[in-house]
Amino acid sequence: MTQADLQPPPPAEAARAPLSSVRWDDGVPVIVDQRRLPAELVHWRLSNVDEVVDAIRTLAVRGAPAIGICGAYGVVVGLAEARPATTDEAVAALALLTERIGNARPTAVNLRWAVGRVVAAGQRAAHAGADATGVHDAVLAEAVTIHEEDRLACAAIGEHGRRLLEDRRRILTHCNTGRLATGGDGTALAAIYAKHDAGELDEVIACEARPLLQGGRLTAWELAAAGVPSRLVVDGAAGPAMARGLVDAVIVGCDRVAANGDTANKIGTYSLAVLARRHGIPFYVAGPLSTFDRTTPDGAAIVVEERAPDEIRGLGDRLVAPPDVDVWNPAFDVTPAELIDAFVTEVGVIRPPYESTIEEALRRPRPDGLGTGTRTDTRSAG
Amino acid sequence: MTQADLQPPPPAEAARAPLSSVRWDDGVPVIVDQRRLPAELVHWRLSNVDEVVDAIRTLAVRGAPAIGICGAYGVVVGLAEARPATTDEAVAALALLTERIGNARPTAVNLRWAVGRVVAAGQRAAHAGADATGVHDAVLAEAVTIHEEDRLACAAIGEHGRRLLEDRRRILTHCNTGRLATGGDGTALAAIYAKHDAGELDEVIACEARPLLQGGRLTAWELAAAGVPSRLVVDGAAGPAMARGLVDAVIVGCDRVAANGDTANKIGTYSLAVLARRHGIPFYVAGPLSTFDRTTPDGAAIVVEERAPDEIRGLGDRLVAPPDVDVWNPAFDVTPAELIDAFVTEVGVIRPPYESTIEEALRRPRPDGLGTGTRTDTRSAG
Repeated sequence: MTQADLQPPPPAEAARAPLSSVRWDDGVPVIVDQRRLPAELVHWRLSNVDEVVDAIRTLAVRGAPAIGICGAYGVVVGLAEARPATTDEAVAALALLTERIGNARPTAVNLRWAVGRVVAAGQRAAHAGADATGVHDAVLAEAVTIHEEDRLACAAIGEHGRRLLEDRRRILTHCNTGRLATGGDGTALAAIYAKHDAGELDEVIACEARPLLQGGRLTAWELAAAGVPSRLVVDGAAGPAMARGLVDAVIVGCDRVAANGDTANKIGTYSLAVLARRHGIPFYVAGPLSTFDRTTPDGAAIVVEERAPDEIRGLGDRLVAPPDVDVWNPAFDVTPAELIDAFVTEVGVIRPPYESTIEEALRRPRPDGLGTGTRTDTRSAG
Repeated sequence: MTQADLQPPPPAEAARAPLSSVRWDDGVPVIVDQRRLPAELVHWRLSNVDEVVDAIRTLAVRGAPAIGICGAYGVVVGLAEARPATTDEAVAALALLTERIGNARPTAVNLRWAVGRVVAAGQRAAHAGADATGVHDAVLAEAVTIHEEDRLACAAIGEHGRRLLEDRRRILTHCNTGRLATGGDGTALAAIYAKHDAGELDEVIACEARPLLQGGRLTAWELAAAGVPSRLVVDGAAGPAMARGLVDAVIVGCDRVAANGDTANKIGTYSLAVLARRHGIPFYVAGPLSTFDRTTPDGAAIVVEERAPDEIRGLGDRLVAPPDVDVWNPAFDVTPAELIDAFVTEVGVIRPPYESTIEEALRRPRPDGLGTGTRTDTRSAG
């Protein structure tokens, strides 16, 4: 493991060179080791397949899009490591890497999708007569394309979100949907970054998102690194914040959107939607079109993963509940479409009635460079 | 510090000798050291005033009623420690103890009230001609009375709550309102214990209550010790639990109830009330009449303490947010009366319209032995 400890960049610096969860640098992916946040910003150069798999498995890299991009670059690293002498050796190496990296997190659909896409590009190049170097170059080009598509999708979501939020200057959000989770500025946080850059933001209220506290560990950290004013609250304080008039709008990410608009997202999202409705505060969901799943008719069809009880019983070494207490620990909850005022996607804003508008958005021609987006599921985003 | 490590009693044992946050044993108060929970059950014999003050200051004992009872017994210990030879020396010792113990937690109104009450009993005895021993005995008798009144109030709340909850067998609660917080079975948890004893309970869903996690550290622990079936959830999972039909009723405690029924309680309570209303689930608040404050007209008049940012930034030694991130950390929130279906008190159930029914309940003659109850405020319950 090669690690370089760095201080968080000063705000002005950060504005010029935004944080990247994953970047391609001198032949290897370099990730932010999210296990070390918020204590320190440590970059990790993933110089071989063992390190790529280890980084994905241990959640050093997390967020469905970021995991997919890391896995795609990981195939490039693995192919270089295998040093194939012939096209056939390169294709054989790709098959092994598909298994090895694609299964680093068994439930991460997005990871398998991205790995499959770069491997297919390599196979196509081989089929077209490329030598081993040509196969490598095709895989790398596809990984860069996946990354760039995600970056552009984030930018488009950010700008559509900024316009949607208009003069609402105090924004509440949940979990982490930003630069640490994606290959760009994020989804809900991309809108917040865009508002901040345009001078249209007063404050972010960031819910910490128990049990894994991505709001505190990651969102509060990345907003501070970018110079965006924010306050961190426990999830139970979101309602009182709305009641006191501290919140003009809520925007969150999503892990899966059903055909009717029902939305699975990090546990705690549903409560925010119910509270926002009570207080007449708009509630928006941001995410790429790849998150919209035509094959899921509604929220009842979404199976929500239940995670390990120890996420609630303890935090680090600290025991915060009896070690044998029964726990109900759903990773996600489902917010019914009727509580969602609009979706923000890379092709624009989607408003009710969602049964028709979502279908229409999925058919709409996509802007240049946005490709097919990355794919997510309800079990991989972390 | 004299400490005796004990294993949690087996369920059958626990049913015969319920856990006591504070008990008077052989001339000293013995408390459960709540800092050591849930890892281990440690009793601490508070054999001098230093230990009493230390126990209160460090939250080894918490919950407004339990703190008050501990402080009252602490005055007895302090008087014995002072070894007054004359009535005047006893009265002088009481004056010192009023300051010393009454201010162990500066914002704990209930502590000062209980200390003041036992000191006044000692002063009355002195005035009536008692010697130093007689003063001591009067102080002890008053402390025992305060404790017994609280125990009886808890029992009455428990029985009224049990009847109110009727055939609702799956109960969601918040924070810790049980044997660890009071001199008896608690308030909201007393109703749950009564239901369990009557065979009318299937399951408790206990919200963990970030930031201090009393639901996990204390409620899950004391329910397990009593053999009451429960599942622990993060606060953000309460809404999904209701949406899935896992909750038949919600019952919580209270720190202050305004004259119109608006109620201050542990942060997170308001969200539970909003969610319960959305799902048509009854939402009840349990507490002694001493919690009802005629001088506070409504929720807008309740000043909610904001606590230290580090409660959210860290947990134990573990940093869970940037060390300098801005935080909003209100200790309590205010639930409007319109979301509360009924209050459960030691004199019975109070239903809307609260403007008249609360006033009527406060005027009602109280059953024998219930005294004037203990007093709480929005800053001491922890």
